[in-house]
Amino acid sequence: MRKILLEIEYNGKDFCGWQTQNNVRTVQEVLERQISLLLNENICLFASGRTDAGVHALGQTAHFETNSNFDINKLSKAINFGLDKDVSVLFAKEVDPNFHARYFVKKKTYLYKIYNSKIEKPLKNGLCTQVKYDLDIEKMKKASKFFWGKHDFSAFCTSGNSTKDFVRTIFDIKIEKVADEIHFYIIGDGFLYNMVRIIVGTLVAVGKGKINPQEITAIIESKNRKKAGETMPACGLYLYKVEY
Amino acid sequence: MRKILLEIEYNGKDFCGWQTQNNVRTVQEVLERQISLLLNENICLFASGRTDAGVHALGQTAHFETNSNFDINKLSKAINFGLDKDVSVLFAKEVDPNFHARYFVKKKTYLYKIYNSKIEKPLKNGLCTQVKYDLDIEKMKKASKFFWGKHDFSAFCTSGNSTKDFVRTIFDIKIEKVADEIHFYIIGDGFLYNMVRIIVGTLVAVGKGKINPQEITAIIESKNRKKAGETMPACGLYLYKVEY
Repeated sequence: MRKILLEIEYNGKDFCGWQTQNNVRTVQEVLERQISLLLNENICLFASGRTDAGVHALGQTAHFETNSNFDINKLSKAINFGLDKDVSVLFAKEVDPNFHARYFVKKKTYLYKIYNSKIEKPLKNGLCTQVKYDLDIEKMKKASKFFWGKHDFSAFCTSGNSTKDFVRTIFDIKIEKVADEIHFYIIGDGFLYNMVRIIVGTLVAVGKGKINPQEITAIIESKNRKKAGETMPACGLYLYKVEY
Repeated sequence: MRKILLEIEYNGKDFCGWQTQNNVRTVQEVLERQISLLLNENICLFASGRTDAGVHALGQTAHFETNSNFDINKLSKAINFGLDKDVSVLFAKEVDPNFHARYFVKKKTYLYKIYNSKIEKPLKNGLCTQVKYDLDIEKMKKASKFFWGKHDFSAFCTSGNSTKDFVRTIFDIKIEKVADEIHFYIIGDGFLYNMVRIIVGTLVAVGKGKINPQEITAIIESKNRKKAGETMPACGLYLYKVEY
């Protein structure tokens, strides 16, 4: 039995997220079908984590087990040959039999792209979230530092799933102005449901002057979802990198 | 009668180009319908030039005449309100009654984006043209200089239209490496049918080592379409800027 790790890019626009569900198109289902066909074997993909409908990935990872002796150097090209244009395997490598794409994650980086302008730009549509208000980047940078470290992030999690442990560690948040866009890189050991989108929504509230940077600690400590900012839309979110 | 000039951005993917045709979705038709509805008047748009199916625009321009006294400062927002997400008016301004969006053009800039890698990247799909071969950028830069100036560009024009004058002036071609992309900015007084896409196709042939930079002059002078490179796909092409 071999274990193969894939790095995967996808445009989330036409996917109902990563995880297989009935009667909708998901990244997992599209990839599993294609790899199973290619290797003539029923394979199961285990990702580093789910992504929601509309969320993109520049570096999602997933592993699978196989009995096939398909040449690993030709595998990603062979998989991509049968895939639609909105998903692609960037590389494939063989990993240790006890490796697991989810449980072995050390660091995950998400990127959130805001297009900050009053003018509608069709070519950014679906790839950024437009914010029409002027955002104070220095204030958002100041606020981002209060997220660093190990905290109970209950205030930054959408309820309705089975999570019981709300403690996560944020290693870094980088905020960059790139022409008319603002890019947020959020690096942590793992993320709760909608956590990145709520952190960015809270930073946007800071950027608009609705929340002071110094209030972030109190919002975290409140463990109250209502104190944090809004959940930003999926289309600006990219799973950027998974590190093991 | 007032004359209004619009600057327009669109993602060409789901349009059959600029010009109105029967039973297909075009940028002209979508905009004319929306503006006519808004101003309660039958308006006609005159663009700086057509763009083909799949070609994008970051700065297309078009004018129309109207009897309406709609506030010019609110016009672009009002038009955009009723438009699909893949087309948008960036600004609107009043111009002189004898102005014409096509005949008054002094300079046009096209941008062509190549994604230069063997790896398929879904998030670049439809926004760049992928070239898998390594391209020699220094050679392409050298070759680009032979296009400068006033030439008969018959060798760089797809036949089948009514053009009789094949003389155009190229003011500049800039080639930039931007991470894993190569951007070509081609500036001229006007362009023949498919001219930008054939110039880039010829530069790509130079980048692959199939044509020497020094051969460009002979290809231009041949006036023979078969001597030039291939017509690059529409999805990498952007009408970048129109200057008057």
